[in-house]
Amino acid sequence: MRFFSDNAAAVCPEVFAALGKVNQLDTAYDGDKWSKSLDGAFSDLFGTEVRALWVPTGTAANSLALAALCPPYGGVVCHRDAHINVDECGAPEFYTHGAKLLVGDGEGSKLTPDAIRAVIDPIRPDVHQVQPHAISITNATEYGLAYTPDEVAAIGALAKERKLGLHMDGARFANAVAHLGCHPGDVTWRAGVDALSFGFVKNGGMSAEMLVFFRTELADATLYRRKRAGLLFSKGRYLAAQVLALLEDDLWLRNGRAANAGAALLARAAGDRLVHPVQANEVFLKVSAAEAASLRALGFDFYDWGVGEARLVISWDQSEDAIRPLADAIAAL
Amino acid sequence: MRFFSDNAAAVCPEVFAALGKVNQLDTAYDGDKWSKSLDGAFSDLFGTEVRALWVPTGTAANSLALAALCPPYGGVVCHRDAHINVDECGAPEFYTHGAKLLVGDGEGSKLTPDAIRAVIDPIRPDVHQVQPHAISITNATEYGLAYTPDEVAAIGALAKERKLGLHMDGARFANAVAHLGCHPGDVTWRAGVDALSFGFVKNGGMSAEMLVFFRTELADATLYRRKRAGLLFSKGRYLAAQVLALLEDDLWLRNGRAANAGAALLARAAGDRLVHPVQANEVFLKVSAAEAASLRALGFDFYDWGVGEARLVISWDQSEDAIRPLADAIAAL
Amino acid sequence: MRFFSDNAAAVCPEVFAALGKVNQLDTAYDGDKWSKSLDGAFSDLFGTEVRALWVPTGTAANSLALAALCPPYGGVVCHRDAHINVDECGAPEFYTHGAKLLVGDGEGSKLTPDAIRAVIDPIRPDVHQVQPHAISITNATEYGLAYTPDEVAAIGALAKERKLGLHMDGARFANAVAHLGCHPGDVTWRAGVDALSFGFVKNGGMSAEMLVFFRTELADATLYRRKRAGLLFSKGRYLAAQVLALLEDDLWLRNGRAANAGAALLARAAGDRLVHPVQANEVFLKVSAAEAASLRALGFDFYDWGVGEARLVISWDQSEDAIRPLADAIAAL
Amino acid sequence: MRFFSDNAAAVCPEVFAALGKVNQLDTAYDGDKWSKSLDGAFSDLFGTEVRALWVPTGTAANSLALAALCPPYGGVVCHRDAHINVDECGAPEFYTHGAKLLVGDGEGSKLTPDAIRAVIDPIRPDVHQVQPHAISITNATEYGLAYTPDEVAAIGALAKERKLGLHMDGARFANAVAHLGCHPGDVTWRAGVDALSFGFVKNGGMSAEMLVFFRTELADATLYRRKRAGLLFSKGRYLAAQVLALLEDDLWLRNGRAANAGAALLARAAGDRLVHPVQANEVFLKVSAAEAASLRALGFDFYDWGVGEARLVISWDQSEDAIRPLADAIAAL
Repeated sequence: MRFFSDNAAAVCPEVFAALGKVNQLDTAYDGDKWSKSLDGAFSDLFGTEVRALWVPTGTAANSLALAALCPPYGGVVCHRDAHINVDECGAPEFYTHGAKLLVGDGEGSKLTPDAIRAVIDPIRPDVHQVQPHAISITNATEYGLAYTPDEVAAIGALAKERKLGLHMDGARFANAVAHLGCHPGDVTWRAGVDALSFGFVKNGGMSAEMLVFFRTELADATLYRRKRAGLLFSKGRYLAAQVLALLEDDLWLRNGRAANAGAALLARAAGDRLVHPVQANEVFLKVSAAEAASLRALGFDFYDWGVGEARLVISWDQSEDAIRPLADAIAAL
Repeated sequence: MRFFSDNAAAVCPEVFAALGKVNQLDTAYDGDKWSKSLDGAFSDLFGTEVRALWVPTGTAANSLALAALCPPYGGVVCHRDAHINVDECGAPEFYTHGAKLLVGDGEGSKLTPDAIRAVIDPIRPDVHQVQPHAISITNATEYGLAYTPDEVAAIGALAKERKLGLHMDGARFANAVAHLGCHPGDVTWRAGVDALSFGFVKNGGMSAEMLVFFRTELADATLYRRKRAGLLFSKGRYLAAQVLALLEDDLWLRNGRAANAGAALLARAAGDRLVHPVQANEVFLKVSAAEAASLRALGFDFYDWGVGEARLVISWDQSEDAIRPLADAIAAL
Repeated sequence: MRFFSDNAAAVCPEVFAALGKVNQLDTAYDGDKWSKSLDGAFSDLFGTEVRALWVPTGTAANSLALAALCPPYGGVVCHRDAHINVDECGAPEFYTHGAKLLVGDGEGSKLTPDAIRAVIDPIRPDVHQVQPHAISITNATEYGLAYTPDEVAAIGALAKERKLGLHMDGARFANAVAHLGCHPGDVTWRAGVDALSFGFVKNGGMSAEMLVFFRTELADATLYRRKRAGLLFSKGRYLAAQVLALLEDDLWLRNGRAANAGAALLARAAGDRLVHPVQANEVFLKVSAAEAASLRALGFDFYDWGVGEARLVISWDQSEDAIRPLADAIAAL
Repeated sequence: MRFFSDNAAAVCPEVFAALGKVNQLDTAYDGDKWSKSLDGAFSDLFGTEVRALWVPTGTAANSLALAALCPPYGGVVCHRDAHINVDECGAPEFYTHGAKLLVGDGEGSKLTPDAIRAVIDPIRPDVHQVQPHAISITNATEYGLAYTPDEVAAIGALAKERKLGLHMDGARFANAVAHLGCHPGDVTWRAGVDALSFGFVKNGGMSAEMLVFFRTELADATLYRRKRAGLLFSKGRYLAAQVLALLEDDLWLRNGRAANAGAALLARAAGDRLVHPVQANEVFLKVSAAEAASLRALGFDFYDWGVGEARLVISWDQSEDAIRPLADAIAAL
């Protein structure tokens, strides 16, 4: 069994079925009725008017969001471990035309207002230094922690005070919301988030993520940037369909809960081995090389995470039953 | 019946079936066996060693190719009507970091060595003027004409003489090859083409195009550019599967022939109304506004193309039987 | 005698003297009193509040202006012959991060509202095509014609109607104003110009041009772009001093008039040989190769301008007496 | 007396005189004989064939060098305190089209092979992470330390081993060489440096720095980048003249020694207050706010450098006699 990443999981059946339903000639690009329904569908979901654009990858969503929030000569505060900083090959720099990531620190890849201030307060307000224009946080974080609505709101208040945009990388937004049990608006626009990369690929989708603008005026220019980046699919209905299927009856949330449940099972088995609290669908374990090898010998695959640690990510389709053998193996280490 | 564009057609059943076959957890990005087989599959197809990368759109393929062939301070010669010049919202400029398109002219969107010389010969070889670094041609052209192997080879020879890269935008490469009846290598690498955007979306695919490098050393840097542009799908196997399905038993070529056959049927009906010879799957007609309205009244939809002209594009799944009513209506105008 | 270009002339004595006067330790960058006085000095000159930034070259001034007026995904309408299009090695594309120059035509490198409409009206207002965001005109033009206040105002009205920014490349602004005999405000902000590249290097300066913003809110971001482009000199006072010396007692205008007078002298001698009316300090002549050779044999140097034409540019320090031999030689051809 | 920065000092008389000598009409851009002589002059100075381009600022020199050494999708290792990282408003990112600065640590802003390895060794060699392509070091460093030839050679060996380019920011190269007493080639090309930003503005110049390529093949593309950045002055001879005047009779070196001597005088007076060894012309002192105020009350101006520290920079024209009162005041604190 593979626990490398939820981004390699299968596509869930409802999504697959939805692809079939749109498989006839229709209007190209985002002119089809499914694509056109997305603004409304996400406005309903979030309880406020939003603009919602499909894009194929989380990197694209993040980068377009940052380009909307930060000029080429500006900076974006993010955590040192942020995906945008370490795993996107400079995509934010490409899309923003060279804006600078200003990195801060915090336990479990989580930023706080203090951590952000530690980054931006020393910046002299002169033309020699890159000035901050936006903040980007990841929810759930790269280490599987969820920002609560209050935590986001504290960052949102700082962003507002300093006139900074606020972006949330929600590659695992479903897992975060499933954990928090809050309304998706509570942890986004009500807390000051301007733009959300809402991940669906890790949550049962095939090739569609959503870029949701709570500051709706940011969307129009982004439509040009999306096209200009080669991201405007001519058969866009196949992206819209994936997302709409995941919205239906809160499938996105159920998938998120399912993955979280698997991680929780492992967390209980892991006990003191946990490097971080398990709040979403990622489990970081302290394991020796020998222990890691013994788990692999049992058929469980995962990434080492530095020396003496391992990362296990649970996907939407890995049921508790399926995971139990791994939990037992961890407990038995 | 709609004849707006082949880019809005349905996905062909073999492609759909292929998506199902890869629908289980596998290695992410392009680490799956299907993605890994693409270099080999396209090397076989072209009869030479190539590097073949999936990308989701033709705009992305074109832009990555140009970025591989032209530095930011250089220029790319293309036809004034080229898709890269008029329909990609500046994507080539984005990916190349501001290279300049140097536009030439020619009947039916076709460039010739003379037309290219007319663009580049007046450029002073000094640092004040943008120097040409590449040529981009579209086959079949935006007006549905096919460059023959000899015509490409003449441009290829000029490119070599002037040390320019040569890119082919093959959004309708299948239609061109189906028309030419040649080996796909004859009209590409054997004629001096360095990089080909090989279109599959307009030919029965869903969301996968191929960027094929005949100068294989260009591929490595492009892998970074692809990631950096947010184009590296985590579930890349669903793109590879589409393309492999279209390669199997030359489905891509059969689909191309089918669309061409429909266009040929219309061409015969259109007679003197043809604006350009019909060699691929696009038909440009002289029609008055009243005539266009009468066709639309019969249920045929298409784009006006300037004043007094109409464009009709035939898709892979529009059979001759299905098209005959339109042919009859055109003949009866 | 050399008539290649006014950009190669000597620095005028008042400018040189001014350099000496600032030659002591002072505040770096643009914090010195001379640099700080520029906003006021140019506001006085133009009769309205402006922001005025020194930059070292006209290419830098033009490119920064365009970056302030046009986003990366937008377009700038300019004449096919515009310096920004043919003589700046893609600098506008570099500074704007890939915006597209949308070229129009017109006699003597002059755009008109109709010529501009011919460029922008066919652009579909969709995300596939680069949308115009600004217009750039050159005054005096690359062929030495001056736009009158009315001509600029007509373009300014169109710009306003279409919500486009308006930039004026004034590499030879002094020559234009000297010819027009108008207030410098008449042909700029009163006519709708948002940003002016005000040339001083061709007019007796050494290394300082001014970027003047009539839409003052554009200046702040430009200060960052200027630094980011490596254009913020640490010893900025030597640039400010040059410009202030040229403003004093309208030296800039006197220098412009002097160069124009020389050109007028040649124009009278040239008669029917003139390719364009001579309104500034450039003279374009029809001359055969043999005639050009005979002039050169007499010691007059200049550029051929295509086949059968020659360009002669008069500098601020070429007196009528000094030019008379050339005038005589032309008359005697 | 002001000790803010050597970048605000006066221009030295020899440089001023040289400006006068080139003040007649000549060939534009870098076509004049002075500009043309620079390759030879710097080849002689360094004892190897180089290409030497004038640029107006150190930021421009640094950014062009990095653009020559690193592709847009790559990274440049530098010290966290490097001028390119904290004082150029993102210029390296602008010129490289978004390359990433990969920051390392080290006492006194100095990198070592170990510090560089600590940055690059953890980078996974896959397309998700920005790969290092170059190293940039500053000599003398931002804290006034000089890299010795051996120290540079150790970094140069690592660069070669890892196939990384090596750039030296020599804004205070004169001060470093004056301190080291070595041949300028010993600390550059003989130690593996590919490109040097050779500072003259802080050393008595007005507006000219040199970009020196020891890997001469990097120069040709840089000529285009220089023009494209608006850095190609039409009256380039006034830049060349400054530099040539400073090369004559090793004036650059004498100016560097003079500034270093002043700093050494302060260093002896400062004793235990020194934050860093004083090797060039910068002195960092531990001083309380009250002590700083008392120095300022005596007429000495300088920057605070964080809490409890002050930075004093000595210029080429501040003689030991002129500095002695400050030295005495420091000793008397």
